[in-house]
Amino acid sequence: FAMADVDLSGSAEMGIFGGEGVGGVDIEDQFHTDIDVTFSMSGETDGGLTFGASIDIDESTNGTAFANRTGGGETIFVSGAYGTLTMGETDGALDWAMDEAIIGSALNDDHEHAGYNGNSLLDNRFTGGDDQVARYDYSFGGFAVGVSAEVQNGAAGDDTFGIGATYDGEFGAISYGFGLGYQQNDNGAAADVSATGFSASMSMDNGLSAVFNYTDYDNYMAPATGLGGFAASGGVMVDDHIGVAVGYEFGQFLVAANYGKFDTAAGDMDGYGLVANYDLGGGASLQAGYGKSDFDNGAAADQDRDSYSFGIAMSF
Amino acid sequence: FAMADVDLSGSAEMGIFGGEGVGGVDIEDQFHTDIDVTFSMSGETDGGLTFGASIDIDESTNGTAFANRTGGGETIFVSGAYGTLTMGETDGALDWAMDEAIIGSALNDDHEHAGYNGNSLLDNRFTGGDDQVARYDYSFGGFAVGVSAEVQNGAAGDDTFGIGATYDGEFGAISYGFGLGYQQNDNGAAADVSATGFSASMSMDNGLSAVFNYTDYDNYMAPATGLGGFAASGGVMVDDHIGVAVGYEFGQFLVAANYGKFDTAAGDMDGYGLVANYDLGGGASLQAGYGKSDFDNGAAADQDRDSYSFGIAMSF
Amino acid sequence: FAMADVDLSGSAEMGIFGGEGVGGVDIEDQFHTDIDVTFSMSGETDGGLTFGASIDIDESTNGTAFANRTGGGETIFVSGAYGTLTMGETDGALDWAMDEAIIGSALNDDHEHAGYNGNSLLDNRFTGGDDQVARYDYSFGGFAVGVSAEVQNGAAGDDTFGIGATYDGEFGAISYGFGLGYQQNDNGAAADVSATGFSASMSMDNGLSAVFNYTDYDNYMAPATGLGGFAASGGVMVDDHIGVAVGYEFGQFLVAANYGKFDTAAGDMDGYGLVANYDLGGGASLQAGYGKSDFDNGAAADQDRDSYSFGIAMSF
Repeated sequence: FAMADVDLSGSAEMGIFGGEGVGGVDIEDQFHTDIDVTFSMSGETDGGLTFGASIDIDESTNGTAFANRTGGGETIFVSGAYGTLTMGETDGALDWAMDEAIIGSALNDDHEHAGYNGNSLLDNRFTGGDDQVARYDYSFGGFAVGVSAEVQNGAAGDDTFGIGATYDGEFGAISYGFGLGYQQNDNGAAADVSATGFSASMSMDNGLSAVFNYTDYDNYMAPATGLGGFAASGGVMVDDHIGVAVGYEFGQFLVAANYGKFDTAAGDMDGYGLVANYDLGGGASLQAGYGKSDFDNGAAADQDRDSYSFGIAMSF
Repeated sequence: FAMADVDLSGSAEMGIFGGEGVGGVDIEDQFHTDIDVTFSMSGETDGGLTFGASIDIDESTNGTAFANRTGGGETIFVSGAYGTLTMGETDGALDWAMDEAIIGSALNDDHEHAGYNGNSLLDNRFTGGDDQVARYDYSFGGFAVGVSAEVQNGAAGDDTFGIGATYDGEFGAISYGFGLGYQQNDNGAAADVSATGFSASMSMDNGLSAVFNYTDYDNYMAPATGLGGFAASGGVMVDDHIGVAVGYEFGQFLVAANYGKFDTAAGDMDGYGLVANYDLGGGASLQAGYGKSDFDNGAAADQDRDSYSFGIAMSF
Repeated sequence: FAMADVDLSGSAEMGIFGGEGVGGVDIEDQFHTDIDVTFSMSGETDGGLTFGASIDIDESTNGTAFANRTGGGETIFVSGAYGTLTMGETDGALDWAMDEAIIGSALNDDHEHAGYNGNSLLDNRFTGGDDQVARYDYSFGGFAVGVSAEVQNGAAGDDTFGIGATYDGEFGAISYGFGLGYQQNDNGAAADVSATGFSASMSMDNGLSAVFNYTDYDNYMAPATGLGGFAASGGVMVDDHIGVAVGYEFGQFLVAANYGKFDTAAGDMDGYGLVANYDLGGGASLQAGYGKSDFDNGAAADQDRDSYSFGIAMSF
C-alpha cells in the first residue's frame, strides 16, 4: 500500500491586504487567497539508514518543480548515525546555522520587510546556479555542524561553499541557541564573495522570546533587480546586516516585532515588522501583520513602502 | 498523521469526439482523454468552527493554481453557526443562487452549447479581476441567502457585488427549488453592468426532473473574443438569457435535453444539447453527448457549429 | 473516504553526474536531484470491470498534464475478461510487445545512449500527434496480443496503427519471452512509414539475464532535431536497429551492460551502457551508470559523447 510512504500536508490562507508601494503608489485593499500542498516521502534501508524526500508545490514555478536537475521546492535526504546528507532546494550552511530574526506569521509576509534577511543571499545567486545545494550536517550533544556546496553547471559558473555550527542549551527557565556560519562564492574572475554570520536566540517559559542576527558581507553586490523590493538598490554593495526580533506569547495570543537593517554603499536599507497571531486551535489561526521599509537611496530621494494583511491561516 | 486532513479525489475520461466547427470546418473524429486530481483539506477549531480548502489541479493554468493572490481552481472557507465565508475561485452570489439549466454529463461538454449559460458572466470578467471572489452565505429552514464581492486590484479596476437567495422544499413526490440573484459591476467610467436572474427546478420520485432559468442583463457586452465560441459575437450587447432543461432517469439510464438562448444586439445565439448516461456502478459511467449552436450574427451570414462525444467517465 | 481509490507513489534521486558532450565540450561534474509523484486511481463497476487511471507528474510539461485532450503522463484504462483498453500516453503495440534491450538503472539514464532504442519511434512522432494512443490487449495462456491506434487531430494529420504479440514461458530454470510488433504511419502524401520489430529475453534462476532486439524501419527519417543527441543526424533515414543487453544479479548487486546500433544513411549510430546497482532495501538503491555514444556522421567527422552518474535512488 503505497500511501504508507507518501504523506500529504497542506496550508491555506484567506484575508485581505493593502498598503503603499514605492513612490507613494497605493496598493488597493484587496483579497488574499493562497493554498499549498507538500508531498513528504520517507523510507528506511535494511541497514537502518532513513531516507526521504519532499516537494512543496508552491515553490515550483509553472510546474517545473518536478524537472530533472533543478531544485525548485524539492529536498532529498539520507540520514544515519554519521549525519544527514540533504540535496535540492535546501539551506546553505550559513542559513542552516543561523536563526532568522523573525517571530510570528502574516498572510502577506508583511513583516519580511526590506531590512529583513533570510540569510540565503549566497544561496542560488550566482552564474550557473540551479537551486541545487548539497549539505551535510551532524549533531552531537547540543552541538551541530554543517557544510554545504553548490557547484557550477558550466565552465563560466561559480562554486559556493559554506560551513556552519550551532549550539542549543537550557539555563533554568531559558532555552537558548547560538549559530555561526560562513559562506563563500568563487565569483569567476572577480573577487570572492563571502558572508560571515552569527545568531543568538532565547525563549523563556513565561512566553518571551528574542532573536539577534549579525552578518558581515564581503564583495556582495545586490542583484541588478534590487534588494528588498527597492529596484533602485540594484548593483549596490552590501556591507553588513543586523536584525533583532522579540515576541511574547500569552494564552492563544502571540505578539511580535522585528527590526532589521542592511548597511549598503547607498546608505541604510531598514524596516520593521509587527504581527499579532491568535491560535484558534485545530491548525487555524488569525494573523495580522504590518511592515514598513525604508531605503536611503544614496544621493537620490529616500524611498519607502509599507503593507498590512489580516485574515485566517490554516494548516492541514 | 497528516493524511487525516488532506484527501485526494480524482476523475478520468476516455472516449472519442468530433463534429463541425464554425464555417463548416470539420473537427476530425479523434480520441479524448482527460484526468483530474483534487486535494480537499479540512479541520475544526477548538471553538467548533469548521474550515477547509480545496484545489482542483485541472482548473489551473500551467501550474499557477498554487500562486499567491490568484484564485485558479482553489477555494478556502470557514463555516459556523452564523454562516459560511468562502474565498477563491468560487461562485458569485448570482451563480451560487441559480440552478443552471443543464442535466447530465458529456465527456466533451457538448451540451454546454453557445446558448448555455453558466450564470457566471459577471464573475472574474472585468478589469483587475484575479478570480478571487469572497462569498458569505447563511441558511435557515429551506431558505439560504448569499452575498458576494470581487474587488479591484488596481486604481483602474472595478468592484463586483452580488446578492442571492434560494428556497428548497418538497410537495408530495416533488422536490423543488427556487433561486434569485443579482450581481452588479461598477464598470469604471462607463455605465454599471448588472444581471438579475431567476431559476426554478424540480425533480420527481418517478425520475423526471426539470430546470428553468431566466437572466436579464443591463449593459453587459460580450468579451472581445466572443461568446459561446462565436468570435463574431465579440463586443455585442447581451439583453437576456433563457434556458430550460429536462431529464429522465430510469434504472441505470439518464437521458436529458436542454435548450438555451441569449438575446443579443446581433440577434439570437441559441443551442440545444442532448445526453445519455449509463451508470456502470463503482464510479464509472458511459456518456454520450451532442450539442448544436447557432448565432444569427446580425446582418452577416448565420453561423453554427456542433459536436458530439462518447466514452467512459470515471470518478475516484 | 476518497483515499481508498487514489493512491500516491513517488521516487527521488540524488547524486552527481558529468561527462563529455558532442564536440568535446565538457559536462561539468555537478549535482543531480530529481523527484517524482504518481497518482494511481482504481475502481470496479457493478458488472466486475476494473477501471483506473494514473498520472505521472514528471512526464508533464509545465503542468499541462492535466489538460484536456493531451496525453502528457496520463493513462486511463478499462479491463475485463475480454481484454484491456488503455488510452493516453501509453505504448503503441510495437513498444508494448517488445522488451527493450536494457537492464538496470542509472540516475542520469547514461545507459540510454544514442544506440539505445526505446521502441517508441513511431509513437507521437507525426503531424497532428498529441500523445494520445489507444491500445487494446488481450492475454490467454502465455500469449498476449495487442493492437494500437493514434489518430490525426486535423485534416493534414496522419494516423498510426500497430499490432503486436508476445509469448512468455519457462523451461527448467529459465524464464523466456518473445515479442513481435509492427507499426505503420500513414505519412500524408509521402510513402508510409513502418517498423517491424522482434525481441527475445530470458532470465535464469542463477541471476543471469539477457535481452535481444531487432527492428527494421521503412522510410523512417530521424526528426529534424536529430536522434540520440546528435543534431547532425537530423533528417537522416534509419534502416534498422539492433540491441542486446546482459545482466547478472548476485546478492544485493546487479551489474549489466548493453549495446545498440542504428544503421542509418549517414553510417552507424551506436553506443554502449554500463550499470552497477546495489539494493539497500526499503526502496533505496545505489546506482552507478556510464554510457558512450558514437555517430559516423556520413562524410563529415565522427561525433561522440559520454556521461556518467552516481548516487542514490529511492522509491516510495
